[in-house]
Amino acid sequence: MSFEAALAEAAQATDTLLDRLVGVPDGLEARVFEAMRYAVLAPGKRLRPFLVLAGAQLFSVAQRSALQAAAAVELVHAYSLIHDDLPAMDNSDLRRGRPTCHKAFDEATAILAGDALLTLAFEVLAESDTHGDPAVRCELVTALAQAAGAQGMVGGQMIDLIAEHRPDLDIGAITHLQRMKTGALIAFSCEAGAVLGKVPHEPRLALRGYAHDLGLAFQIADDLLDVQGSAGETGKPVNQDAAAGKATFVSILGVDRARAQAELLVGQAIRHLEMFGEKADFLRLAARFVIDRRT
Amino acid sequence: MSFEAALAEAAQATDTLLDRLVGVPDGLEARVFEAMRYAVLAPGKRLRPFLVLAGAQLFSVAQRSALQAAAAVELVHAYSLIHDDLPAMDNSDLRRGRPTCHKAFDEATAILAGDALLTLAFEVLAESDTHGDPAVRCELVTALAQAAGAQGMVGGQMIDLIAEHRPDLDIGAITHLQRMKTGALIAFSCEAGAVLGKVPHEPRLALRGYAHDLGLAFQIADDLLDVQGSAGETGKPVNQDAAAGKATFVSILGVDRARAQAELLVGQAIRHLEMFGEKADFLRLAARFVIDRRT
Repeated sequence: MSFEAALAEAAQATDTLLDRLVGVPDGLEARVFEAMRYAVLAPGKRLRPFLVLAGAQLFSVAQRSALQAAAAVELVHAYSLIHDDLPAMDNSDLRRGRPTCHKAFDEATAILAGDALLTLAFEVLAESDTHGDPAVRCELVTALAQAAGAQGMVGGQMIDLIAEHRPDLDIGAITHLQRMKTGALIAFSCEAGAVLGKVPHEPRLALRGYAHDLGLAFQIADDLLDVQGSAGETGKPVNQDAAAGKATFVSILGVDRARAQAELLVGQAIRHLEMFGEKADFLRLAARFVIDRRT
Repeated sequence: MSFEAALAEAAQATDTLLDRLVGVPDGLEARVFEAMRYAVLAPGKRLRPFLVLAGAQLFSVAQRSALQAAAAVELVHAYSLIHDDLPAMDNSDLRRGRPTCHKAFDEATAILAGDALLTLAFEVLAESDTHGDPAVRCELVTALAQAAGAQGMVGGQMIDLIAEHRPDLDIGAITHLQRMKTGALIAFSCEAGAVLGKVPHEPRLALRGYAHDLGLAFQIADDLLDVQGSAGETGKPVNQDAAAGKATFVSILGVDRARAQAELLVGQAIRHLEMFGEKADFLRLAARFVIDRRT
């Protein structure tokens, strides 16, 4: 199977589960469920679910288990996009080529939909479908909470907001910010399969190394798309960071060095996968994909 | 020990743990931790933690376990207050006698602090300190997620926002709204001890019945305070609901019938506790407290 076909298949399987997880009830509360669906089922690459599923395949984890973790990651990702897009945050009107959640609904509904998606992610992980051993489910809850919380994604977003007024931040500070903001959830995605497979420490460390390099490469590619992409392709406004005078990998390194650095990171990421042999080919292709993508 | 002393002792013990759970790190992300502390350590009754601890005492649950659950509930409560107070929601400037989180910090920081407190609640429940048996920890994660999510508290807040433009809502609709918005988290608080104690179905049902009546009585008392309280005593603006033309228990029933209804519910709540004998005296006093309180 080609990488593109595998990515599409993973997206399809994840969306099928997400569709089931977020059913709209009767009653006035239906509105928040509709906003949740609008956000989490929006067209997207579903890269994080793909990483969960590809990582789980290394250890022959049951598909049902892996999909639960994949859905949980996507729920958290979708919540973070809703809240990041709010007027008080990045104030974005466009996401994935459509109006952002607070534009399609309203700000209050968008805040609540984000809250509910985040909450649902933990409910999903704690379900017995995720794993027969509750200790494994607890480990996933802990790992996702740490990746998503103030020491991870939320902390990274906090720094990112502060960084808008700090064009003096150096490459070390930007790297720290991005490891928290996007890296932590990508790392969770890559490691979830190892948790589900109850594998020893060494393969987990290898996956963490892979995730670390992949996450940074992903972010540099994002910064490059902001400068070089088109709104039509990326589905969101471009040149936002440069216009805001914000320090990014590209503003600090320049386009050429940033691209070279991303290439270097992808090579490093792939080298972490040696111990897995052919089984990790999709993860290798995913590493190339994150810097070759145009959206 | 008097009820007031027990309530103060529970608040103190919970705050000690919360203080430890939300430490401020170095780095720019410190700002979101400061906002989290500002909100969760704000002066308050800590009624929900008290209910957790009093419920846990019925089943001789270890204090350390009960405190973990108590802290988790208060983290969720604090997050919900931050988000409810936002300009896009209830737009409140005053909470617990101090500026609300978005006034003391800013909107973006307040949104993130709420997100991080919610996330931390699940991290706390999944910790081994909460219970030696991971199946129990997973059960608590599931129960808290259901109480806090779109089928519980968030769904209730969604309806509450819609209700502002629907003065035609009847007592059934308002009851449904409040069972979700405040009742679900109070029910979790009352039942958490039974989960930790792995007790049979019957005592759990009794506690659920108690929680249900207590939650409604609590909300009616809140509506009465909105009409009859003073901002100085309650620490938040009063007459908000009436000014907004919003349907509440008091607007539908009138002050006298609302108070009578609250008294009736407290009596009902207390009758659910018969099987627990003297051990449940603090829960009985808590039921009186929720309608006699002036803040």
